This record gives sequence, C-alpha cells and structure tokens, in this order.
Amino acid sequence: MTAAAPPRPPLKIRRINLDTGRENVVVISRRSTALRPEVFRGFSRVELRNQSKALLATLLLTDDGMVAPDELGLAEPAFRRFGAAAGSLVTVTPAPPPESLDAVRAKIQGRSLSGADIAAIVGDIAHYRYSDMEIAAFLIGSASFMTSGELLALARAMADAGTQLKWDRPVVVDKHCIGGIPGNRTSMIVVPIVAAHGLTIPKTSSRAITSPAGTADTMEVLARVDLGVEQMKEVVNVCHGCLVWGGHVNLSPADDILISVERPLGIDTREQMVASIMSKKLAAGSTHLLIDLPVGPAAKVTSAMEAMRLRKLFEFVGDHFGIAVEVVTTDGRQPIGDGIGPVLEAQDVMAVLSNDPAAPRDLREKSLRLAAHLLEYDGELRGGSGYPRARELLDSGAALKQMHKIIEAQGPSGCVADVGGLTADIPAPRDGVVETIDCLRLNRLARTAGAPIDKGAGIKIAKKIGERVAQGEPLYRIHAVDQAQFELAQAAAQADSGYTVGTQATGKN
Amino acid sequence: MTAAAPPRPPLKIRRINLDTGRENVVVISRRSTALRPEVFRGFSRVELRNQSKALLATLLLTDDGMVAPDELGLAEPAFRRFGAAAGSLVTVTPAPPPESLDAVRAKIQGRSLSGADIAAIVGDIAHYRYSDMEIAAFLIGSASFMTSGELLALARAMADAGTQLKWDRPVVVDKHCIGGIPGNRTSMIVVPIVAAHGLTIPKTSSRAITSPAGTADTMEVLARVDLGVEQMKEVVNVCHGCLVWGGHVNLSPADDILISVERPLGIDTREQMVASIMSKKLAAGSTHLLIDLPVGPAAKVTSAMEAMRLRKLFEFVGDHFGIAVEVVTTDGRQPIGDGIGPVLEAQDVMAVLSNDPAAPRDLREKSLRLAAHLLEYDGELRGGSGYPRARELLDSGAALKQMHKIIEAQGPSGCVADVGGLTADIPAPRDGVVETIDCLRLNRLARTAGAPIDKGAGIKIAKKIGERVAQGEPLYRIHAVDQAQFELAQAAAQADSGYTVGTQATGKN
Repeated sequence: MTAAAPPRPPLKIRRINLDTGRENVVVISRRSTALRPEVFRGFSRVELRNQSKALLATLLLTDDGMVAPDELGLAEPAFRRFGAAAGSLVTVTPAPPPESLDAVRAKIQGRSLSGADIAAIVGDIAHYRYSDMEIAAFLIGSASFMTSGELLALARAMADAGTQLKWDRPVVVDKHCIGGIPGNRTSMIVVPIVAAHGLTIPKTSSRAITSPAGTADTMEVLARVDLGVEQMKEVVNVCHGCLVWGGHVNLSPADDILISVERPLGIDTREQMVASIMSKKLAAGSTHLLIDLPVGPAAKVTSAMEAMRLRKLFEFVGDHFGIAVEVVTTDGRQPIGDGIGPVLEAQDVMAVLSNDPAAPRDLREKSLRLAAHLLEYDGELRGGSGYPRARELLDSGAALKQMHKIIEAQGPSGCVADVGGLTADIPAPRDGVVETIDCLRLNRLARTAGAPIDKGAGIKIAKKIGERVAQGEPLYRIHAVDQAQFELAQAAAQADSGYTVGTQATGKN
Repeated sequence: MTAAAPPRPPLKIRRINLDTGRENVVVISRRSTALRPEVFRGFSRVELRNQSKALLATLLLTDDGMVAPDELGLAEPAFRRFGAAAGSLVTVTPAPPPESLDAVRAKIQGRSLSGADIAAIVGDIAHYRYSDMEIAAFLIGSASFMTSGELLALARAMADAGTQLKWDRPVVVDKHCIGGIPGNRTSMIVVPIVAAHGLTIPKTSSRAITSPAGTADTMEVLARVDLGVEQMKEVVNVCHGCLVWGGHVNLSPADDILISVERPLGIDTREQMVASIMSKKLAAGSTHLLIDLPVGPAAKVTSAMEAMRLRKLFEFVGDHFGIAVEVVTTDGRQPIGDGIGPVLEAQDVMAVLSNDPAAPRDLREKSLRLAAHLLEYDGELRGGSGYPRARELLDSGAALKQMHKIIEAQGPSGCVADVGGLTADIPAPRDGVVETIDCLRLNRLARTAGAPIDKGAGIKIAKKIGERVAQGEPLYRIHAVDQAQFELAQAAAQADSGYTVGTQATGKN
C-alpha cells in the first residue's frame, strides 16, 4: 500500500501570445512531464526559478497544443518581466503567498504597521508578487484607517521602489491636480509658460484609468510621451520642461499598480491619495509643488472642510520630506475647457496657447492662475508679479513657442489626431439656464463614447453653468469612432444628460 | 478630420482547453473581426450574450491560432456555465461592474447594508459576476464590522442562492465543526452511529481549501462523495444518513466562492464564519444542529470568552431561523486521532468503527460525546441515555455495519487509498514530555507533503501532549507521494516540528 513519484526535470520556456493585462500568467500542459498539474489547481500561484531569476505567477492548465508537455508557456507581461530567453530551462514550484501578506492580515485585523512592514509590502507589489486579490486586501485593509506614520512610510516606500530622478538645480517645480474634473488640461498650458520663463518643470503625468483622458493621453495627441529617463532629461535640459508619461519612466511603479486596483474598485481614501501623489513627487525630485484641489458637488472634494483636511495632510507630508507644498482650491463644479477626451482636449490647449479668441476662457484663466503660483517660486521675480508675468508669456506667444519646442524635442507620437466622426447633439430639455453639470456623469459618457482608447472620442461642451439655453439647443456634442460605443453613449446621454436646466427667467451669464 | 467604424457582427463560440480555476475567462484574437481588442485591454471584464443567456468574464487577448478572428474562445469553467454549444453566435460588450458593487463600496466606507443590498451582492457572486478582486473587496469591507441584521441577511441570501433541501421529517439532525484541528474526523463516526439509531442525518461536508483534508476528501477515500441531490436523498432514505460533498449538491454556492477567496487571504471573522455555516444548514434543511467548537492556543477559538461570544452568535441566528442549535466546546490543543491527510484519517475512522484496540482513543471518545448530544434529539430516548446508547451502537458493530451500508449506497470513488510511500520520522530533540503541539504547523506540514491532493500524503502522529519521549524517538512520521513535496515537508519539519518537548522529570501521562 505505497505510492511514490520521481523528482521532476525543469521545463523549457515558450513565449505564448496571450495578453494577460498586468498579472503574470504561465500556462502548462495537463500532460506536463515536469510537474503534476493536479497539484497546481487552475489559477493558483506558482514560482518560476532560473538561476538568479524568480517570478510569482498565476497558473493556467491546458490540454491542447498551446504548450508541449515539456514546456512552460509564458504570457505577456510575464515573459518580459522574467527576462529569460525562450527555450531556457526553468523550475516551477507551488508558491506560498509572499511573507509580507502577514502584515496585510494584521492590518485588516486593525493593527498599525511598521515602516519595515510597509516597505516589504510595497516591494512585493512593485515586483509583481501580489495577486490582484492580495492587492485589494492591502488597499481595503488600509482604507478604514492609516496612521500618519504609515502614510509617510507608504509614500517613502513607493518612491523608493522605482526610478528616482535627480536634478542638479536648487528649484525644481511641479504641479498636480487630484483629478476628477473633465477637461482641465492646465498642465499642458502651465508647463510651457513656466518653462518659457526658465524655471525647471519636468512634468510626468498619468494615463487615464477610469477617466476619459489623463494628461499623458492628451499630450500623446501632440507628441510622444513614453520617453525613457535619459530622453526625458535631455528634453528638460533643452526646454526646461517636459510633458511625459510617468509610467514609462517607472516613477513609483507600486503606486501605478495600487491605482489600477483601487480605481475599478472605487476605493479612494485621503491617505492613499496623498501617499500616492507624494510618492511620485519624491521620486521625481521636485522641490516645490503646487496642488490643484477642485471643490464641487461631484468633485473628489465636496466641502471646504474636506479641502482643508487634505491640504494639511499634503503639507504634513511635504514638510516631512522637505518639499515646499502649496495647495490651492479651485472651482470643481463643472468641466474646465470645452473638450473631454484626448483630441478634443488637445484642441482646447492649443487654442489657449495660440490666443485663439474662441479658446475656452476658463481653461486660460485657471492655467494663468496656477502658472502664477509656480512663477513666484523664482526668487528673482518681484512678489506679486507671477500673474502678470504668466499672462505676458502666454499673450506674447512665448508659451506657444515653448510648447512647440517641447513637442519637437519629445518627437511625434504617430497617434491619429482626428475627432470622432460619429456625432450626436444632446439637446436642452426646456428653455432656461444651466444650473448644474455632473462631472462624474460626463466623464462616464465620454468614456462610453470610447475615450481615451479612441483618442478622437469624447464630448464637446456647448453650454456651461449659468448660460441660457433654448429648448432643443445643444448642451454638448458626443463624438465617437466606434458605432457600438457611439450608440451606447448616445442612449446613456439621452437617459441622463448630466445637466440640470432650471426655468428661472434670467441666467447668471 | 473624422474617423468611424461599422457595427460589429457576433462571434462564434469555440471551446478552448484552458482551465482557469473558478474565474470565467474568454479569449479573443487581436485580429478579431467582431470587436476592437484595443477597447478591451487585457484582463478586463466583458459580457457575453446569446439570446437569453448572459455571462460576465475576464478577457484575454491572443495573436496566435488559439482562436480565429471570427471566434470567441471559452475556457473552462466559463464554457460550462454559459451553456451554449460550440459554434453558436455570441455578442461581446465591455462589462460595467455589477451594480451591487455600489453597495460594497458603501460598506467599505462604513455604512450598513440592507437585506436587499446583501441579496443583490450574494446573487451576483453566486452567478459568477464578481471578479476575485471584487469578492475580496466585499469580504474585507465586511470584516471590520457586520450588524446582526447584515449577518442574518447574509446567511439567508447565501442559503437562497443555491439548492434547498426539504425533508418530510420533523427531526433532521446535523453536526458541524468550525475546523482548524488536524485529524478530527468525528463526522465519519458520528453519522453512522446516529443513522444506526434511526435518526435522519444527511451530512454534507466541504473539501479542504487551506487545510490538509476536509471530511469530503477523507470520505472520498472510502466512497464516492460527489452525489447529486436525488442520489443523496436516495442514500438517506435507505441509510438514514450520508457523508457527501456539499459543493456538488450546490448548497450555498456563494459561500463556497467567498470561502475560496477568504481562506487564501486569511480573513476569517466571527460573523462571516457564522453566516457561512448557518447558510449551509438552512439550505440543508436541518432542524437540530450541534456545533463543535474546539478551543486551544492554535485553534480558531483561543479563549472561553471568545467561545461564548461565538456560541451566542450561533444561537441568535439559529433562533431567528428556527433551527435548534447546541454548541459544545471541545479540546482544541492538539490533533484528534493520529492521522492527518485523507488516507491516514480514513484509517483512523475505520479503526474506531471496527473497535480496533489500536484505534485512537481521543477520536473515539470525542465522537461518542458528539453522537450522544445528537441522539438526545430523539424524543423517545430517555434523557441522559444518549451516551450509553452511542457507545452501544459503536461497540456492538452496528455503527460499522451502518458505515458499510452508507459506503455501498454512495458507491466506489475509484480513489487510490494507499498511504504515501515516501516516509520520514521526525525525532524528539531531547528526553522529556510533549508539552504543546502547534495545530497550524502540523496542518501546514501535511499540506506541504501533498495532502489533500495526494490522498496518501500527510502525517501520522506517534506522540501527543503529556506523553514521554526519549531523544531521537519519533514524534510523527511524514508520508508523501511526490519527491519534491516530500523534501519540502521534511526540510520544513526539521526547521520547526511544531512540537515543544519539556524537560520536566515526570510527564502527565
């Protein structure tokens, strides 16, 4: 009554064309010569080893010819991350969960974590050792409370886990908006103004995750944004500023992973937001930072009290790490600019920089105001002259010239820059005045229409809060590229446009 | 400057041999004719529709021949769940998260949920509409607090989401152990005793998730356990009792899904445990329920105070749903029986039922005690005579005969019932007395050795708490089938055996 089995030979790596998003996935045959698939039930975690290389991955089993019995299939992005050539030998063992998961469990049970605990968790996440489920556990476990010590440790650990930029200059300025407002592409106007003045502003931005466009998506309509660290430094040396995608430079990669789990789940705590933003700024080598905090009923921050709490949290973390932080609250009741979606937003930006009389005035004014704050970080500038200086740089065409210089230095992106040709106008339901615009709703509609994947999809706003409209007059226009998404967006906008139009006799316009 | 695309035709279903565990997964070609893969980034969620059928699934993209551009690959278990034939036409759209996820977010933010919210969440989970990440969000969001109303709603909703057994008998008894103690296969002794007496005891058990064996895994060594509802009823009609796998009968399927996420994450709250157990008993149609609550330093319950709280919670839920619940606390300081792992445990069980003088005495005594409680539910039995009656049924061979009848009625499983032939004895480090045995550690070692997948793998205990040992004398023996796992288990046991051996002059034995 005994049974035994011999030890197992390693498997040969085969690259397989299966795109599994962010998760590491390996495929083995059910008839594998090298391990017993029954030990590795579907979707369990395994560890690959090949000399000094190791990788945790999720396992899929197959019966068909995708992989031979003596092979191990590596899907993207696992193949790239493991970094061994096709055909190399690799051993596979069932992977225990990362040890740092004990700290996650402790956190779920209400304990606070040490800096070492947090560094271990963040390191494992940055090295793709956590499954999505485990990442969700860390995020939600931390959502109910986070001590100030945990917050500092999280920001530090996330900054340490990726590239750290160094600039041999005493003043490196940066701006950041906490997001949530459609349009609002101020960075693409602020950076050329500030850079035209001569201050260093190496701006890294994110791509959209649940929104219809991130600054990186919109800038990509005009120029390449996936620059490496050295290329980015070159652009900044030549132009004083840049507008690149932070993900490619690998600033705070753990933060990107956390965000990609927390956004779809809709978890967004104050502490996690501050740790996320400050980790990026620490890694980017910023010395002076301006935070744009839009406040409005459908913005991320809905009250002055909440804005104050958030401001203090930013200041606390900034002080701790020696970054001069200034927080300004801005109008977050409605979109900034007229376009929502990469191409439409890029058009707004270029209209403002070109002093086009039809350019959205709110985008121009907000950008000037933010640029003014940043220009005041120049010790040579007379106090209070930030705003006139910003206006001078914009009106004279210096900012536009600087933007063209940046676009040229970053190079062409090759993206299609056409506006989506499927269009539908969404009409006002009655005569009256626009009373509210639901930012969340417009974001969702623009996304349904195809943004940011379809660069030309989105919304072009015709009326803003306080403007008078006649019944049937367009509130905004939907643009789409794909027929199915066009129909979905149109139906959704007809069901709920996101606008309320009041019937009072006179508008505020 | 416009771009547009025509609407998309549906895709043909192709069954693909890829085992993706519990998650629904579909594969489409990057050159798909029916949708634009760039819209569906890797590992995002999509909805399939085919007339009345709908399914949410996770999407993988491929370039190679796995699926043609006009096909949609359905991996197991999605193919089975969708239930449409290969070749049928199906449409695919990006899937918004289930609406009930709004309630999950509210819960994470600290709100309590209504019965309707919880029913919607549980319904979506039972229909595989949640990703693992979303399930983790619900579990962890509920881990910090759950109101008594939420607890009742959760138990009810989980019971309603699957099969509900009805027995036209006034008394249907059941027993349940909250788990955590290695060995401890009392159900397989209690059921034949109680059934031999003539009481109805339709026992459904779980398979191991993170432990080295569940009762269903151990029973499977002796008989088939994956019976359908009708077969199970037939066995109970003939034998008064059965020992089947609850998963196959589809009792509280949402609970099985929740457990499969909560166990690897190591989240286990009192409320979730009680809701889980009571949902199964509600669905099983039990009228009288005995709960075995082991208390010990490495058990799930570590103090008398905790045991009392848990008892009250079980009584509260039982009272609400009209189930007579009795909770007994038992010794949870060490394993019950000598074997850990399916085959070794099945040998213990059969030794007790056969009145083998070498049978583990603790397993016999505990089983008799539990059976005695259940027998007292027989109104005909004179109060206090449960224990002698249980002993009589065991000693006379009536229980063994009943077990053989149940085994025969359930049919053969075809499992290999051999003990693993790779063995290693773990020796006592010094002369002395066994002071403690770490149940968690032994569970983990048995699992490392290969249990429950290798039915013959596990641990055979030689010494228990209070027994004297000489240096070098075996504390236990590791059994394994697979060489690699054998070596891992042996190394782990040598590093930490899970035993402490004290040097006091006299033992308690």
